[in-house]
Amino acid sequence: MLLETKRMGGQTVRLPSAPAIVSCANVVGNQEGKGPLRDSFDCVSEDSLFGQKTWEQAESEMQKRVLNAAIAKAGIDAATLSYIFAGDLLNQCIGTSFALRPSEIPFFGLYGACSTMAESLSLAAMMIDGGFANWTAAMTSSHFCTAERQYRNPLEYGNQRTPTAQWTATAAGAAILSNEGNGPYITHVTTGKIVDWGIADANNMGAAMAPAAYQTLRAHFADTGRTPEAYDLIVTGDLGVLGKEIVTDLFAKDGVNLMGRYDDCGVLIYDNEKQDMHCGGSGCGCSAAVLTGYLVQEMKKGRIKRLLFAGTGALLSPTSSQQGESIPGICHVVAISTEREGA
Amino acid sequence: MLLETKRMGGQTVRLPSAPAIVSCANVVGNQEGKGPLRDSFDCVSEDSLFGQKTWEQAESEMQKRVLNAAIAKAGIDAATLSYIFAGDLLNQCIGTSFALRPSEIPFFGLYGACSTMAESLSLAAMMIDGGFANWTAAMTSSHFCTAERQYRNPLEYGNQRTPTAQWTATAAGAAILSNEGNGPYITHVTTGKIVDWGIADANNMGAAMAPAAYQTLRAHFADTGRTPEAYDLIVTGDLGVLGKEIVTDLFAKDGVNLMGRYDDCGVLIYDNEKQDMHCGGSGCGCSAAVLTGYLVQEMKKGRIKRLLFAGTGALLSPTSSQQGESIPGICHVVAISTEREGA
Repeated sequence: MLLETKRMGGQTVRLPSAPAIVSCANVVGNQEGKGPLRDSFDCVSEDSLFGQKTWEQAESEMQKRVLNAAIAKAGIDAATLSYIFAGDLLNQCIGTSFALRPSEIPFFGLYGACSTMAESLSLAAMMIDGGFANWTAAMTSSHFCTAERQYRNPLEYGNQRTPTAQWTATAAGAAILSNEGNGPYITHVTTGKIVDWGIADANNMGAAMAPAAYQTLRAHFADTGRTPEAYDLIVTGDLGVLGKEIVTDLFAKDGVNLMGRYDDCGVLIYDNEKQDMHCGGSGCGCSAAVLTGYLVQEMKKGRIKRLLFAGTGALLSPTSSQQGESIPGICHVVAISTEREGA
Repeated sequence: MLLETKRMGGQTVRLPSAPAIVSCANVVGNQEGKGPLRDSFDCVSEDSLFGQKTWEQAESEMQKRVLNAAIAKAGIDAATLSYIFAGDLLNQCIGTSFALRPSEIPFFGLYGACSTMAESLSLAAMMIDGGFANWTAAMTSSHFCTAERQYRNPLEYGNQRTPTAQWTATAAGAAILSNEGNGPYITHVTTGKIVDWGIADANNMGAAMAPAAYQTLRAHFADTGRTPEAYDLIVTGDLGVLGKEIVTDLFAKDGVNLMGRYDDCGVLIYDNEKQDMHCGGSGCGCSAAVLTGYLVQEMKKGRIKRLLFAGTGALLSPTSSQQGESIPGICHVVAISTEREGA
């Protein structure tokens, strides 16, 4: 009976209790602070090392700062949090594990590449709706310098970027969720399947992930019986310029017009032309900082009432690329509303 | 009200519906097939490549096989599964993402190092108890050759292993969970915090993870009001010989005697002396194969009625070790019983 209230069939569940996003915090680097969303971020750091000795330690420091800031804004102690769901792009997710080392919060480690913010929000909200917690947290990060070193080349190599390349954002975001609060509220979760249409170019992640975004968004509309018009904004994160075009085209072929109500966090975060960012931003932290900054602020101001947040991840590694594999993509979708609209 | 039924305070929740482990499947390599548990595994493969071209593809193939086998044993279609929770040790968890590429099952990617089987079981069970699904799956794997290449040296290098080193098991295990079934049942979940007592020797993982096992097990006993005597067997996975000794000692100092009811999957899987395995087995697949093989079979036979399964993970990477960091550990605990014993 409980199940009938929650499962909408396919890949979607409704959260009758609609857990609230009580507080958000984020931090970005210098490059992100030059973009159009600069005023929406809590903190723009001129120091890419965030006072640390290595890029990896810098990324952990970013997560520490946003978690502490989000906890402080929520007016709670860390001990109030029953669970934190978090992860990052680094090998063995060390950005997260070293950030959480002093935290004393029960921790479920995730790996969803750039879909991590949507994946962590999904599970953090479901834990509350499932009756396991009153307070949970969701968090992720990325850092341009850790990602370049690990996925491509050390910065010192000075390699040229291809026209379809995206720029890994130096950014982190955290959200505190609760069964109480004034919203916005998480009302639905549509969980992604792995989708791989055979793209093997690791410098064209947008094209690799776009089919996954299309698949999960389509499932969300089918499962809920909603059309894109049900949302003021549908936002993927982070497909970049080309991936956004592909998603728009795929829906257009189905006769569904996303124009005017669809955007992408990787497109929003930079002024692509002035900043010469090629296809735009990427990295777990990009959609995390755009959601916990600009998007939630727009919701608080009432300018966005219903948001469909679609985190997209490319589940490759340098090893799989070297072995000639194509790039599996995944997209997790979370519906967020200024009104509690559960069952 | 729901929360009061489920939360036991601290790090533990009780699952009133006690989801059942409906079916299990596993596969191991040649080395594991020479150990004392050989008859408990579904399949011992003489071919470490599992018919594939690379070790990474072999690891994915292992996950594919155990998932398909577990689904077949449960008598369901893959489409019946609402969620799969899975992950592995590889960079960006490619063992799992490439295994699940053809599966069409909504997928939450996890990174918990060798705690992954306990982490995935925790979340798979909570999703059912929370009313989000009737059927879920939990899965993980490890492969000696992928792990050596990634964490230590390529096999061709032929390096010597230190006395405290553990042997990454070539093994995979999957479990299918449901709200129906004859058990065994998952009754409690105690979620770990990161614990780091400053061990920095990447060849002594048992010592690095033992404090986390001690912390979460202690929390489980405190939260539930139970003593170790409530369980026929408490099993960590995978601390190896030295880690097991440390956990036993830490509890002994508290006046708690674990002797006779405590063991470790990394100790159980090999005949350490005959097979010259130094401190025993490790790797996500070790505890996954021991749980889905020997342990669940012992429960089905009634020889173990109450099992406390404690997955332990070392959340380091080669990069963090090279940067001189110590090793953060985590331990997730799942209580499994032949009887439904919910709220």
